[in-house]
Amino acid sequence: MTVGSEITRGLIQDTNSNWIANKLTSHGVLVKRIISVPDEKEEIKWALRSCLEIAELVVTTGGLGFTHDDITVEAVADALGLKLVLSIEALNMIKSRVRGEVTYQVKAAYIPEGSRPLYNRVGVSPGVHIVVGSKSIFLLPGVPGEMKAIFEDYVEPLVSQSGVYSRTIIVKTRHTYESQVDRLLEPLRSKYTWAYFKTHAKTPVEITVIVRANSLLELEERVNALIIDLQRTLEVQSVETIF
Amino acid sequence: MTVGSEITRGLIQDTNSNWIANKLTSHGVLVKRIISVPDEKEEIKWALRSCLEIAELVVTTGGLGFTHDDITVEAVADALGLKLVLSIEALNMIKSRVRGEVTYQVKAAYIPEGSRPLYNRVGVSPGVHIVVGSKSIFLLPGVPGEMKAIFEDYVEPLVSQSGVYSRTIIVKTRHTYESQVDRLLEPLRSKYTWAYFKTHAKTPVEITVIVRANSLLELEERVNALIIDLQRTLEVQSVETIF
Repeated sequence: MTVGSEITRGLIQDTNSNWIANKLTSHGVLVKRIISVPDEKEEIKWALRSCLEIAELVVTTGGLGFTHDDITVEAVADALGLKLVLSIEALNMIKSRVRGEVTYQVKAAYIPEGSRPLYNRVGVSPGVHIVVGSKSIFLLPGVPGEMKAIFEDYVEPLVSQSGVYSRTIIVKTRHTYESQVDRLLEPLRSKYTWAYFKTHAKTPVEITVIVRANSLLELEERVNALIIDLQRTLEVQSVETIF
Repeated sequence: MTVGSEITRGLIQDTNSNWIANKLTSHGVLVKRIISVPDEKEEIKWALRSCLEIAELVVTTGGLGFTHDDITVEAVADALGLKLVLSIEALNMIKSRVRGEVTYQVKAAYIPEGSRPLYNRVGVSPGVHIVVGSKSIFLLPGVPGEMKAIFEDYVEPLVSQSGVYSRTIIVKTRHTYESQVDRLLEPLRSKYTWAYFKTHAKTPVEITVIVRANSLLELEERVNALIIDLQRTLEVQSVETIF
């Protein structure tokens, strides 16, 4: 979820969702929905509910700052029926990041009851981690540098413990027509349900393959079996692992 | 709505939604939701319903091609309870864009009953325009060049007749703190409900203002009144109209 009217009004290109989707995919997480909404309480609440209805993990960016339209924390708390309370831990994090006295920045120390503030080593506003049953919600700032730091410090350690492993491979073929490659791939799609195949309309055609497994050993075995089968099925020029 | 697992898996940066949001905003359209979903029928159907529940206009990109995972037209028809029928008009459009015989490309000539194919002067797959009551749904290809051509040929003429006019202005101030500018803007936000103010945490602070009106004359009057008030309220360095 990316929050900000500057996104829905097309004033800035949202790059956060792509960065996060890429990171989550590399850890074997299947991203089902990316939603951008304006700085409007009802839309933020709708987006959160829409994510929670199908996902175990929700990551939001944007709306954690100190201005009038930064309402993500308030809207999320409201959607979950939680009160905002002053977190001394969050306040101390803010104090450590502000030169001089904390004034208007105190706003960012009010987080949903029971949630945990996440130290922001790049900016001022802490992130927030909310646990709802088996589900985790992470609220991150919209500034890419701050978002990435908190993601790496807190979200990545969590998802890397998920027990799911993933490898992304680029296969360059000698084929000219995407539709031909697509037809040739059909039996592999049925056989390898743990793999995702995406053909690209380049000449010659390229395929991105994402393989998922429950252990590193299984991942190696699956990648090897798949590459052998791809070489039998298609005219393969090269295979490259990207992450 | 942007459709494609390559987006939700973070393999490519979706730039279509930013381009479309920018265009729609420049025509006075308020964009409420941007949703990206994978090439999965249930997710596409959910996204369409989520857009239709609040919008008069829905634009989708992606999934109009000829491969296995291009299922947008089918999923949208399914969500609306419409059958796919062979459109001779669409077939002729495809024929005029294909060198040699039309084979697998015939797929793109099957569009929802009652809908209109939109000529693609850059690629092969026609776009699709579906009218549901007072609402319009446009299905566009995911390739940016093709999407932009069909958008400019068919969507833009429609939205430019909406009778809503919009101007976007960048105001450079001499202020250092975004939170100070935010507080000073508070009375203007209450007074000018037809304007949107977005402060940017640059030094000095910049503000993007979007003004909407129901005629060009009203737009001029509103922009002029607003600029005078901004100059009274803030230390303004420059005002620039961007679109």
